[in-house]
Amino acid sequence: MSPAASEGPVRVCVLMGSDSDLPVMKKCLEQLDRLQVRWDCVVASAHRTPERVVKYVGDMERQGCLCFVAAAGGAAHLAGAVAAQTTLPVIGVPMAVPPFDGLDALFSTVQMPPGMPVATVAAGDYGAHNAGLLAAQIVSIADPALRDRIRKDRESTKVKVVEKNRKMRSELGLGPGVID
Amino acid sequence: MSPAASEGPVRVCVLMGSDSDLPVMKKCLEQLDRLQVRWDCVVASAHRTPERVVKYVGDMERQGCLCFVAAAGGAAHLAGAVAAQTTLPVIGVPMAVPPFDGLDALFSTVQMPPGMPVATVAAGDYGAHNAGLLAAQIVSIADPALRDRIRKDRESTKVKVVEKNRKMRSELGLGPGVID
Amino acid sequence: MSPAASEGPVRVCVLMGSDSDLPVMKKCLEQLDRLQVRWDCVVASAHRTPERVVKYVGDMERQGCLCFVAAAGGAAHLAGAVAAQTTLPVIGVPMAVPPFDGLDALFSTVQMPPGMPVATVAAGDYGAHNAGLLAAQIVSIADPALRDRIRKDRESTKVKVVEKNRKMRSELGLGPGVID
Amino acid sequence: MSPAASEGPVRVCVLMGSDSDLPVMKKCLEQLDRLQVRWDCVVASAHRTPERVVKYVGDMERQGCLCFVAAAGGAAHLAGAVAAQTTLPVIGVPMAVPPFDGLDALFSTVQMPPGMPVATVAAGDYGAHNAGLLAAQIVSIADPALRDRIRKDRESTKVKVVEKNRKMRSELGLGPGVID
Amino acid sequence: MSPAASEGPVRVCVLMGSDSDLPVMKKCLEQLDRLQVRWDCVVASAHRTPERVVKYVGDMERQGCLCFVAAAGGAAHLAGAVAAQTTLPVIGVPMAVPPFDGLDALFSTVQMPPGMPVATVAAGDYGAHNAGLLAAQIVSIADPALRDRIRKDRESTKVKVVEKNRKMRSELGLGPGVID
Amino acid sequence: MSPAASEGPVRVCVLMGSDSDLPVMKKCLEQLDRLQVRWDCVVASAHRTPERVVKYVGDMERQGCLCFVAAAGGAAHLAGAVAAQTTLPVIGVPMAVPPFDGLDALFSTVQMPPGMPVATVAAGDYGAHNAGLLAAQIVSIADPALRDRIRKDRESTKVKVVEKNRKMRSELGLGPGVID
Amino acid sequence: MSPAASEGPVRVCVLMGSDSDLPVMKKCLEQLDRLQVRWDCVVASAHRTPERVVKYVGDMERQGCLCFVAAAGGAAHLAGAVAAQTTLPVIGVPMAVPPFDGLDALFSTVQMPPGMPVATVAAGDYGAHNAGLLAAQIVSIADPALRDRIRKDRESTKVKVVEKNRKMRSELGLGPGVID
Amino acid sequence: MSPAASEGPVRVCVLMGSDSDLPVMKKCLEQLDRLQVRWDCVVASAHRTPERVVKYVGDMERQGCLCFVAAAGGAAHLAGAVAAQTTLPVIGVPMAVPPFDGLDALFSTVQMPPGMPVATVAAGDYGAHNAGLLAAQIVSIADPALRDRIRKDRESTKVKVVEKNRKMRSELGLGPGVID
Repeated sequence: MSPAASEGPVRVCVLMGSDSDLPVMKKCLEQLDRLQVRWDCVVASAHRTPERVVKYVGDMERQGCLCFVAAAGGAAHLAGAVAAQTTLPVIGVPMAVPPFDGLDALFSTVQMPPGMPVATVAAGDYGAHNAGLLAAQIVSIADPALRDRIRKDRESTKVKVVEKNRKMRSELGLGPGVID
Repeated sequence: MSPAASEGPVRVCVLMGSDSDLPVMKKCLEQLDRLQVRWDCVVASAHRTPERVVKYVGDMERQGCLCFVAAAGGAAHLAGAVAAQTTLPVIGVPMAVPPFDGLDALFSTVQMPPGMPVATVAAGDYGAHNAGLLAAQIVSIADPALRDRIRKDRESTKVKVVEKNRKMRSELGLGPGVID
Repeated sequence: MSPAASEGPVRVCVLMGSDSDLPVMKKCLEQLDRLQVRWDCVVASAHRTPERVVKYVGDMERQGCLCFVAAAGGAAHLAGAVAAQTTLPVIGVPMAVPPFDGLDALFSTVQMPPGMPVATVAAGDYGAHNAGLLAAQIVSIADPALRDRIRKDRESTKVKVVEKNRKMRSELGLGPGVID
Repeated sequence: MSPAASEGPVRVCVLMGSDSDLPVMKKCLEQLDRLQVRWDCVVASAHRTPERVVKYVGDMERQGCLCFVAAAGGAAHLAGAVAAQTTLPVIGVPMAVPPFDGLDALFSTVQMPPGMPVATVAAGDYGAHNAGLLAAQIVSIADPALRDRIRKDRESTKVKVVEKNRKMRSELGLGPGVID
Repeated sequence: MSPAASEGPVRVCVLMGSDSDLPVMKKCLEQLDRLQVRWDCVVASAHRTPERVVKYVGDMERQGCLCFVAAAGGAAHLAGAVAAQTTLPVIGVPMAVPPFDGLDALFSTVQMPPGMPVATVAAGDYGAHNAGLLAAQIVSIADPALRDRIRKDRESTKVKVVEKNRKMRSELGLGPGVID
Repeated sequence: MSPAASEGPVRVCVLMGSDSDLPVMKKCLEQLDRLQVRWDCVVASAHRTPERVVKYVGDMERQGCLCFVAAAGGAAHLAGAVAAQTTLPVIGVPMAVPPFDGLDALFSTVQMPPGMPVATVAAGDYGAHNAGLLAAQIVSIADPALRDRIRKDRESTKVKVVEKNRKMRSELGLGPGVID
Repeated sequence: MSPAASEGPVRVCVLMGSDSDLPVMKKCLEQLDRLQVRWDCVVASAHRTPERVVKYVGDMERQGCLCFVAAAGGAAHLAGAVAAQTTLPVIGVPMAVPPFDGLDALFSTVQMPPGMPVATVAAGDYGAHNAGLLAAQIVSIADPALRDRIRKDRESTKVKVVEKNRKMRSELGLGPGVID
Repeated sequence: MSPAASEGPVRVCVLMGSDSDLPVMKKCLEQLDRLQVRWDCVVASAHRTPERVVKYVGDMERQGCLCFVAAAGGAAHLAGAVAAQTTLPVIGVPMAVPPFDGLDALFSTVQMPPGMPVATVAAGDYGAHNAGLLAAQIVSIADPALRDRIRKDRESTKVKVVEKNRKMRSELGLGPGVID
């Protein structure tokens, strides 16, 4: 994790309802680091510290933040509480916690009323990873260099699939195939 | 509807996310009227007017309100937003709106994090009715006369079941039974 | 656990369908202890010992109990069976047991018919914790000192979130933020 | 409906949580009539009139009833409440009412704890029909003539499928097939 | 397990779709043993050996079997396949296997078409236990001595709840309560 | 409908659990007609007439049928019952009937045990349409002319999408676009 | 609808899997119109015309599009197919069509694999409305004037809630309240 | 695994969205091996490498492949992406991965739009096994020798059920039964 590695103002702010969400949300921060998007990250509760959410979102927007990411489980209200305080894009990550494994958080995050969108990603690990990438995509609208980095990153994921294919075919004893 | 029919301070405050919830929530107000519990009712949105929710809950608690009822559908955050502003009991009514018919609102209302309970009732009409009754039960903790009225009300519901039984047995051509 | 630590009559009675629910329901008792609300606790089955549920609820109400909490899993009828015997507020805690992890118990607890509300909290551990808190909130309607203790308790949960934020930011190598 | 058409003691007792369940539950009574099983039917609520359920089940068992059928929707506790009062077989019919269309009632009826079985049939109309048939099958254990009538009834349902097949093939312009 | 311990013809026949269901279904056989109901048990597949299911059900009914129990998971068709071969009561036990933990088996067992009831019990262990008890209840319609044994068994389960209550209250340091 | 319009032996046999499924399943027959695949169609019940299902499947396979389609709702066992009688491909269509709108039928059709596959298509109208197309695709493995007809049919569906796009853009007042 | 009313290049491109989605997706286009964001709209199928999706997304990105919106129902793959062709933000709108009313489309849209985010909004009408708003929020990252328009729009939604509150209070006969 | 053990062109092509699906999908390849159906297998992503999916499907169809199998989890689009590139039968295997254990993949695979069928099998291990068998059944339409092998294979599964029955009866201490 190296939030300071990127220059300029913080562009993406990540809020978590609980510090127990950090192991999963590190996947989000890693994507931002990899794409050199400067981020900040706080624990803030929509219910226990609502006024801190208000202050954080307002202050960070004024400091140049362009996109918020909020992660919460259960009756996951945090992304909606952030959306209520800004007109910048807000990304919601439903945490997949027992007993309903994220189905409750998915509904609570995605089914927002008209006028208050939350850009929802997958429940769990994949969602945390993709929230970082989606935040970077959004910020890249105003940052051509970042847009280039994301394009190159996409190319590298293609290469990984090609390599996994070769490795698996080798494991299965298959010779060269039509897409090797 | 006759909120002023009851004397003294407002004891139960009902918040709705949208005025489209009123036809269902009238069942809640009717129970409060019937049990002579003084109520107030507002449209207030957890997302569009969060600061108005904060002001309303704070002011009404100071004026003597003892219990809040919040009704919302979809990513139903209103009850949670009220709970964040008071330590009085908060009742949540999940509105049963399409396409998920209240399953989303039920999860968003009931799966609250530790420290922030919402007393959740059934999705839809039954829940609105029961929210009024539950609010009255809670207020009755400090109001013996109300507690008596609720007890008598309970007795009258028993009588109705007995009458429905007689009517149905008559319709089916059944003679007197062991519980007639 | 120290039910006798609080003075005066028992205010909250906790019923469990099975002694296997105790490890989870201890979270409920701990909240009541912490807030100095006197409680009693029994194992009683809506199906195997219905007449004992009737006797317990009636006797305890006469002795001054102001709120009941019932925990059960599967076809969780216990909270409803308690509600049928009293007009005091009844809180239901859906136990999250396999194979349906509390979805069955949630439906069985919350979807009560008109006239018979059960104040339902989250399935599982969070629900047990919140049931204790909600019971205290309800009892506090008639107990100003308890109401003060709950308010102070709420403040302390805010402090914990602030501390968790600091700890997490330190772990991530982040400097002082706008809400530190 | 002709409960008196059958001789001897009442063999199957049908309880409904509400008279609004009658249109669906008539399908149950029709099956019993058709198979000449003497039945009784009451409206009784597990929550509003629990003591009437206790009295009805006890009295009817003493009068020779051999099987109970209970129909209820939502947090459907009626079948369980009957099962708690008898060791005779109890059949539960989950009513398919909005907003959850019987999924709540299915869970509340079928997920009974060990020691307290409820023989659950399908949610809705098919379940009401089959509850009548299952009750007759159970009573037939001790009634060879009824067992014969049920066997003949089964044969007649086969004939109906054959006739429907012929009618549909004719509508589609298909000639005689291998199972005509 | 001691199927031969009971005298007379086999009264309850238990079919399993796979021998992997035996550890769960032993709970069913234990109930039958305990209540001295003579049983038989086979592995038979509705899909792989349909003609063996036909033969087994027909032969056992002719030998005096009065009730069938069928356990299967996933697209659980076994209980329905048994029901198609007999007009005796058929009990279905949905096995709670991954990935859907019995929700698929519950639907496949309970949602039977009109004319073909399956008496469905809970998914998983509780269902296996209750299937044995329900089968005994059904057989007891024609066996007064068994009916007495089941009644006594019910009393003993009440005693167990009372004992568990005492043990738990002692663990919690609670003195004698109103239902001790 | 014109099953005789196609020459040679019947290649696809469509079974329905009830004649009420015909309006939906006509979409299946229409696809087969359009692609000139000769079909037969019967009403046959897995539960009420299991021996007729056995005879039909066996006879039609001997007469040259290459693929079976089975449509059923609720505890939809028909496709599985067909699969048990043949090693030819069997397609299952879950009927979307109340109260669970096909979720029960989907689970009952798709979650087949190892060794007994059912090729499941979408619940409801889309599934009926696609069952006809999938059956034709399967038969086309051994029928190059049919394979050509299916390829041409696919091209025509592309044309329809292009036309719909033009019509919609015209309705919205949009000029020629990059894919017009 | 007036896509040409806004100057400059098309900024948001809306793809629909079928022209039957237009009545719902008009709510998306209306938001873009209202906020003066220039849009284009096509019918294109991920399955029937995949190469047209590829061409449309590539061409429009080169022409200056900054955000894509894709609406589809059932196995809703369109948003994912768009995401595979661009590194710009892609918004997915799950269409709420029978029989599963959008639950299938929600899962198919939101549960994307790592590296391929889709910003998912609510199933149905609310989602279409919010997709337009979210697209505008994203475009506004690079368009300060648009950002101002969105902020003013947010203020106007607050006013509407205040007005609805007044109207509802008047209908209920309530006098001026604390937030009037 | 021995794909080369079978002579002639590759008949079944298996695509996986990720190499992490291989342990489950080996059950598919094992069935094909056992039935001597020549197969090929690749890792290819509908989203990360869509053009490789297009090339692979086109090339393999030209080389004589008769059936495709696609396995994917979450928003499982791979089977649909394959179906978009061929008119040959496509089998979809929903991977049962957390947090929704395959319910998302099942919906994403089976609910395909009209004109684009995917033959869906069970979520998880059973589905992988059955996908191999179903692919062989489909290929056998044009390969009488394979059809014979599949028939013999079916017989052997019957023998295994008979053996499991004997073993289980022995374990339970049961003597010879009517189907031994």
